[in-house]
Amino acid sequence: MATRRSGRGGGDDGIETGKLRNGEKELSIEEIFELKEVPAWTDQLTVRSMVVSLALGFLFCFIVMKLNLTTGIIPSLNVAAGLLGFFFIKVWTTVLGKFGIQSKPFTRQENTVIQTCVVASSGIAFSSGYASYILGMTEKVAKQAEEGNTENNVKELSLGWMIGFVLLVSFLGLFSIVPLRKIMILDYKLTYPSGTATAYLINSFHTPKGALIAKEQIKCLFKWFSASFLWGFFQWFYTASDDCGFTSFPTFGLEAYARKFYFDFSATYVGVGMICPYIINLSMLSGAVISWGIMWPIIETKKGLWYGADLKSSSLRGEQGYKVFVAIALILGDGLYHFIVVLSKTFYFMAKTLLKKDSVQVTEGTSSDDDIVSFDDKRRTEFFLKDQISMKFAMGGYIVLAIISIIAVPFIFTQLEWYHILCIYIFAPILAFCNSYGCGLSDWSLASTYGKLAIFAIGAWVGMDHGGVVAGLAACGIMMSIVSTASDLMQDFKTGYLTLSSPRSMFISQVFGTFMGCILSPLVFYLFFYKAFPTLGEEGSSYPAPYGLIYRGIALIGTEGTSALPENCLLISAVFFAVAIALDALKEVLVQTNSKWHKFIPSPMAMAIPFFLGGYFVIDMCVGSLIRFVYELKNKAEADLFVPAVASGMICGDSLWGLPAAVLSLLNVKPPLCMKFLSRGVNDKVDTFLSG
Amino acid sequence: MATRRSGRGGGDDGIETGKLRNGEKELSIEEIFELKEVPAWTDQLTVRSMVVSLALGFLFCFIVMKLNLTTGIIPSLNVAAGLLGFFFIKVWTTVLGKFGIQSKPFTRQENTVIQTCVVASSGIAFSSGYASYILGMTEKVAKQAEEGNTENNVKELSLGWMIGFVLLVSFLGLFSIVPLRKIMILDYKLTYPSGTATAYLINSFHTPKGALIAKEQIKCLFKWFSASFLWGFFQWFYTASDDCGFTSFPTFGLEAYARKFYFDFSATYVGVGMICPYIINLSMLSGAVISWGIMWPIIETKKGLWYGADLKSSSLRGEQGYKVFVAIALILGDGLYHFIVVLSKTFYFMAKTLLKKDSVQVTEGTSSDDDIVSFDDKRRTEFFLKDQISMKFAMGGYIVLAIISIIAVPFIFTQLEWYHILCIYIFAPILAFCNSYGCGLSDWSLASTYGKLAIFAIGAWVGMDHGGVVAGLAACGIMMSIVSTASDLMQDFKTGYLTLSSPRSMFISQVFGTFMGCILSPLVFYLFFYKAFPTLGEEGSSYPAPYGLIYRGIALIGTEGTSALPENCLLISAVFFAVAIALDALKEVLVQTNSKWHKFIPSPMAMAIPFFLGGYFVIDMCVGSLIRFVYELKNKAEADLFVPAVASGMICGDSLWGLPAAVLSLLNVKPPLCMKFLSRGVNDKVDTFLSG
Repeated sequence: MATRRSGRGGGDDGIETGKLRNGEKELSIEEIFELKEVPAWTDQLTVRSMVVSLALGFLFCFIVMKLNLTTGIIPSLNVAAGLLGFFFIKVWTTVLGKFGIQSKPFTRQENTVIQTCVVASSGIAFSSGYASYILGMTEKVAKQAEEGNTENNVKELSLGWMIGFVLLVSFLGLFSIVPLRKIMILDYKLTYPSGTATAYLINSFHTPKGALIAKEQIKCLFKWFSASFLWGFFQWFYTASDDCGFTSFPTFGLEAYARKFYFDFSATYVGVGMICPYIINLSMLSGAVISWGIMWPIIETKKGLWYGADLKSSSLRGEQGYKVFVAIALILGDGLYHFIVVLSKTFYFMAKTLLKKDSVQVTEGTSSDDDIVSFDDKRRTEFFLKDQISMKFAMGGYIVLAIISIIAVPFIFTQLEWYHILCIYIFAPILAFCNSYGCGLSDWSLASTYGKLAIFAIGAWVGMDHGGVVAGLAACGIMMSIVSTASDLMQDFKTGYLTLSSPRSMFISQVFGTFMGCILSPLVFYLFFYKAFPTLGEEGSSYPAPYGLIYRGIALIGTEGTSALPENCLLISAVFFAVAIALDALKEVLVQTNSKWHKFIPSPMAMAIPFFLGGYFVIDMCVGSLIRFVYELKNKAEADLFVPAVASGMICGDSLWGLPAAVLSLLNVKPPLCMKFLSRGVNDKVDTFLSG
Repeated sequence: MATRRSGRGGGDDGIETGKLRNGEKELSIEEIFELKEVPAWTDQLTVRSMVVSLALGFLFCFIVMKLNLTTGIIPSLNVAAGLLGFFFIKVWTTVLGKFGIQSKPFTRQENTVIQTCVVASSGIAFSSGYASYILGMTEKVAKQAEEGNTENNVKELSLGWMIGFVLLVSFLGLFSIVPLRKIMILDYKLTYPSGTATAYLINSFHTPKGALIAKEQIKCLFKWFSASFLWGFFQWFYTASDDCGFTSFPTFGLEAYARKFYFDFSATYVGVGMICPYIINLSMLSGAVISWGIMWPIIETKKGLWYGADLKSSSLRGEQGYKVFVAIALILGDGLYHFIVVLSKTFYFMAKTLLKKDSVQVTEGTSSDDDIVSFDDKRRTEFFLKDQISMKFAMGGYIVLAIISIIAVPFIFTQLEWYHILCIYIFAPILAFCNSYGCGLSDWSLASTYGKLAIFAIGAWVGMDHGGVVAGLAACGIMMSIVSTASDLMQDFKTGYLTLSSPRSMFISQVFGTFMGCILSPLVFYLFFYKAFPTLGEEGSSYPAPYGLIYRGIALIGTEGTSALPENCLLISAVFFAVAIALDALKEVLVQTNSKWHKFIPSPMAMAIPFFLGGYFVIDMCVGSLIRFVYELKNKAEADLFVPAVASGMICGDSLWGLPAAVLSLLNVKPPLCMKFLSRGVNDKVDTFLSG
């Protein structure tokens, strides 16, 4: 099956291609792997991989669900899925070997297939929203809110409609990303830091022995992997409650900390920063400065003028409103621009090729051959495009599923009409595009932000009297499952691209994983949590599920429409929407005029992310950039070889720590200490309090 | 003046000797410096160096005094003295150069001479005890204690006797260390980490251009110097009060922290650990485990049985009593053993040579030529022995000064009789030997511990009724100035040894510095503090000088004699005294029988230090050892070249930060934040307190 090497380009991309070192020619990753046969896509899907995926899927579903219902913070599980998949299959083949049964060799493609299946399945546990929008529909939560506890704004949970709903809405995302994956991975060559890191890890597990540089890289990766894991472990001890530990380290003082400017010692984001291009990190930094450094403090001075002085800081009627909507405006501006550019290019090529009657070839045409230079790129692209999922199949699948959904969902949520859902399905691909583009740039998925947008739009459209709250929350679910799938699974496709996994086997694995998630998630939630803990969703209980109330709160505001937003919020958002498009247009002009200044135009998408989240992870990422910059200054060739290994190690180690941390949390083992940061004055008070 | 190279040994001491690297022969430090003329000892003492020393001496005297009177924690000023000396002379010669005046070249020897003068002078500011034992004599402090406020147990301060007393007692230390320096530096080859680090720094400043490895080493040194300085600066922000910041980081949990087992992130002690031999660090670790891990917890269970249950933890009548006396017993056992061995060897050689009538040659005989192997060692030893200070002069000087002191001091302190002082001067050299030996091993000077021993012994001898409190405190002063000088100035002699400075010029510089200190310290204290701030020495005032009351408290207990000590304290101490001698004897036997196991016998002196202080700095030092161990495992040759540079950089950078930190403290600029460590339970309480 191994494809013959068909010549190679210049190879100025030092990460992938071979380098002369110590006077000896070193091989690139894919050159090392070249002798290993790549199995046919059907052979990448094995029974043992399905069994392992099912076991891991159940485990992760439980973990995600429980975390969702307690703190609402969920670690990224890509790495753990890849690693545990490797581990289980190794055990499997070793045990069978003891009994004299010879197993098929375990390949990196099979490993990737397991990983993508588990990610798809546990992704549902999050995007199905049992701790957020679905819980927000219940009377239990409705009672806790001030208003909106009316019959048509409440829906009681039952296993039947929950499984039905999640099955209806979850598969659309899969079809929407099929055309996207070529644009994101081949044309835009986005980094998808987590996906890249996972691929590095999987490649390392399966690297054939004997490759010198590869050995050094793998050593480097595992060194940083261990360091990062241990660092996560060490940090854990000092994080007894919120605002404790290294993640709350006010590196630049408490003032800056309050404005979310601090270095939070996250190995993940330092690693992500090392992989992301400099311009992305600098764009985010400028975004953080513009928003949290300048705009929000100015807006704060308008308290009582533009918005009520007595609002909670988390209320969309106040400061939070500006943050969410301005960020969305920037993202939408940038996303829409790129979406339209891509769409018109595609139509242009399609039109051209229809005339040539050679349509199959040309749907690939968007990835022009000019960019393929190194052997690795060439080989990866080849495998990425080999087992096609045709455009017709993807679009057809999306349309068929959308029609079924449009017909069926209003039976579950009588508050929603068919045209509401149609509307969502028309706009969803654009938002999926935005989210998967942003995630490729910065590793952040903002699915819940897009979900909020849907709550707002549909909630306002339906109105409180006609059950706008439940309608908004259901719309959120429809939107989130598409948008979240688009980013999560695109990360996996990046991993697949870098491990030569067949897109077709991955797609099937994702379908299987999604189906698994659609059955497991509602069951686990309903049986193990909702029925087992009657106090679930109530403040102070062991499962407070704080997001239930928050989402309902958003839906309540949403039903009032834009009038609920603070003053000038829409105006400012409109300005930033225009700014995003202007920046993109400016960049295009500079590129067309061959000006080298186009490199210095910030990415509006990247700028937008800290608008909402704050600058702390940007500081981490800039530290990563700085490390890479210094390393490159000292030794460019070595940096190119080892930076991805270091970064992958840091990302993967930290991510893997998420798993034991989650297990500790499930077992109710809490960290013993709190590392607290107090101002001198407060500290004196505390000292007096403690000694008195 | 440069001595011709007269052949060189095998050079297995990688730190000092040249290595083959990249196929090119590299020079050792002294080979690099060989072409630089070493000035005659008279030329090392210049007017400009005296002026700079005076200026720095005054500055440091002020800093030390103020810190002494506030927190009582004084940074090591060796590095700052070396660095500022370099800076001022450079400015001096540059300014003169602008006016066309050609200055003599500035040598590393002159730099060392300035450094030793400033250290001698600021050492007096500490050992003269205006914030401790002298203040403890005043009525102001006496009033705060429960008992002993009687006429003959109180002495009012006046400038006259203060200057007289410090002049009488401070010079003896200088003479006592002259014979010691050869034993410690040439025979025992002790490391004196701070002294070694300072020498590396001074050598780096003066290294002639062009040496390749040296350039790399210097780059390495300054990189770590900067990192360590910045780390100190960073830590400062989070240290708003006691138990705040990285120095109070409960790395192994709060339980272990309470038992002083934690990593305190001190760059200094990690660096010291990298320089100290492994066996020293392991000895200290075992000492920490035996004392704070096993013995003190057991003794704690005897609370109420062996000692009063209501005693403060700092009271010598309770736990603190065991800590101080057991540590002293171990140290004295070890010290006495070595002292007697050295003494008998010296007498043996003296007797042998008296028969040969060639006495001058043979006082050098203690440093046998067998050990000198490398070029660097040979050259350094040569210069160290070149300008002799004869044994007769040293002993004569000590005896004359002792007689003057014995006659004059009882006029100042009528509570002391001549035989008390005689007694101190007989035992002082032994303790000076112990302290300078221990300091050479571990970088810790325990001068104040020896001072407490003197308080106890003389206080008990004189008794409360005859003014034992003042007598004890005065005895403390006499003892401390000798013991403290012995360790401080031995560090300088190590620096001198490593920079080829003449012992004669250093001795004269030390005499000058000591004299300067004897005049400056009382004046600064009396005029700028004692008279200027009437509340000085009172709790809660801006100069609480907490050690005044503590020392008086010890003296009060001392007057009761051994009966004041907790039960079994003397017994346990005697056991440990015997253990120390047994360990030393065992080692001697193993050495004589050529058993390689002698390397694994711990040093009792090193074991004793954490007995009193706790294990935190030992953890730091073991981390340093571990770093060196791993480095040596990876690349022994490179480790040998760079470990001393890294360690020196870490020690020097952290030490230098002590200076701006002291200045900030003087300007009353306090750190803005407290990084606090709370158990989960306490943290919850604090959170409730802060939010309520």
